[in-house]
Amino acid sequence: MKTRFVLIHTSHAGNVGAAARAMKVMGFSDLVLVKPRWANVLRREETIQRASGALDVLNNARIVETLDEALDGMTHLCATAMTPRDFGPPTRAPRQHFTELLLNQELSPLVHNGMKADFPLVSACQPESVAFLFGSERFGMQNEDVYRCHVALSIPTDPLFGSLNLAAAVQLVAYDWRQALGGFAVEAATPERQLADGAEVAGMLAHWERALAGIGFLDPASPKKLMPRLNQLFNRSELSIEEIHILRGIAKAMLQRTGPDAGKASLPAAASPDQ
Amino acid sequence: MKTRFVLIHTSHAGNVGAAARAMKVMGFSDLVLVKPRWANVLRREETIQRASGALDVLNNARIVETLDEALDGMTHLCATAMTPRDFGPPTRAPRQHFTELLLNQELSPLVHNGMKADFPLVSACQPESVAFLFGSERFGMQNEDVYRCHVALSIPTDPLFGSLNLAAAVQLVAYDWRQALGGFAVEAATPERQLADGAEVAGMLAHWERALAGIGFLDPASPKKLMPRLNQLFNRSELSIEEIHILRGIAKAMLQRTGPDAGKASLPAAASPDQ
Repeated sequence: MKTRFVLIHTSHAGNVGAAARAMKVMGFSDLVLVKPRWANVLRREETIQRASGALDVLNNARIVETLDEALDGMTHLCATAMTPRDFGPPTRAPRQHFTELLLNQELSPLVHNGMKADFPLVSACQPESVAFLFGSERFGMQNEDVYRCHVALSIPTDPLFGSLNLAAAVQLVAYDWRQALGGFAVEAATPERQLADGAEVAGMLAHWERALAGIGFLDPASPKKLMPRLNQLFNRSELSIEEIHILRGIAKAMLQRTGPDAGKASLPAAASPDQ
Repeated sequence: MKTRFVLIHTSHAGNVGAAARAMKVMGFSDLVLVKPRWANVLRREETIQRASGALDVLNNARIVETLDEALDGMTHLCATAMTPRDFGPPTRAPRQHFTELLLNQELSPLVHNGMKADFPLVSACQPESVAFLFGSERFGMQNEDVYRCHVALSIPTDPLFGSLNLAAAVQLVAYDWRQALGGFAVEAATPERQLADGAEVAGMLAHWERALAGIGFLDPASPKKLMPRLNQLFNRSELSIEEIHILRGIAKAMLQRTGPDAGKASLPAAASPDQ
């Protein structure tokens, strides 16, 4: 969905750069600045440094004089406001609002048949485009800019310390919006583990039982609860087939140190691990 | 739940300050630095500036020589790694992992009765404490530090630009973790809207119908579909009782301009808005 980030009256060049980077890691690129403090903010050293490679976002960014110019073509306007206003659009947490916005529900008619709604009120159709508006670092958004928006997004922060950095707010909104749009895949660093089944775990445990007797750690005459304990430990480990091989290798090496028949004598070949 | 953020070999003082601020807005305060580039990083000007009031986090932060010292008392270790590793813990998106971690499910036994798991594998009990580990800005986490962790969290970013700022990563993980723990409430800026019921909407529309005829906009002899259109518009607006009063006030003012009987003549007193 067409998505635009609008920074209004931004003071710190570093925040503009960091906002560009925050947008780009979440796959967004449309940045508009309304009357930033520095007319040359897109070319300032601190901006470029904090953008850290998101230069295309800066190069394509527009600087405009008024919020009207910034909002051309945008149908759903989201203010971001950390401080309450007397009037204006409903306040929502971003994650909740985005879920509802994309649900394409048909709930509205119910409300007007005389019923009070105790479910979230959402418009019956998805917007075509979404703009996120961010006010200045010191003063946030002006009231008149909030009033024209469809919603005031409030990022849930500690009531005792709500001082969210501007670029951090852009990062969180970009993240939640990207996730709501379906998100990016997380690249699995390790191959999927192929889990061992119960028989493989039982076989490995029987092997260990012999080995532990062989090295003199387990007394077959008085095994106590050692094997059930190990069984539970390995259950929690959710062993892969490869790990079964490793553990059997260890058992084999223990047995080789103690002579081939050391642990075999008085134990059944395959003790049930479920005893 | 006891939560610690561990920054390993951090280079930029500004990132340490921004990380402290990012933690604090999400209600976390336990910060440990392992061998930061600057021994005095907690007192550097850039750190304090970017912390923007999260000074208690900086004041209580510890600087240690080794990761071992940083992890005392922490039971569940989360690496953050943007680049894949051959070995090591499973890679997960933070939001997914946190949900599973807090589910306190009893799924594990099933896996070992010979069934392959096609559901998420979670440990049967919640951890007592969680540490989030972040590597250096340039190189990320070292392999041996990742290997000791229970999971490698990977924030889902654009595959074409995964360059997430360190403090931004701390912000996103702190946000997702706080949300998973129940989150902070969003303070409603505006009082709850009390919705008008169907009868109130219909009464207002009848008032408008008279007024629009009064000012000559609606031709009672050929009303076309004006009133149903307005009805649909106001349905989508989900009118509050207060807004009904405003709209009736406008209708009244229109009628006063045109004489009390101007619009009444040929219209029923309460036209059904559902025609």
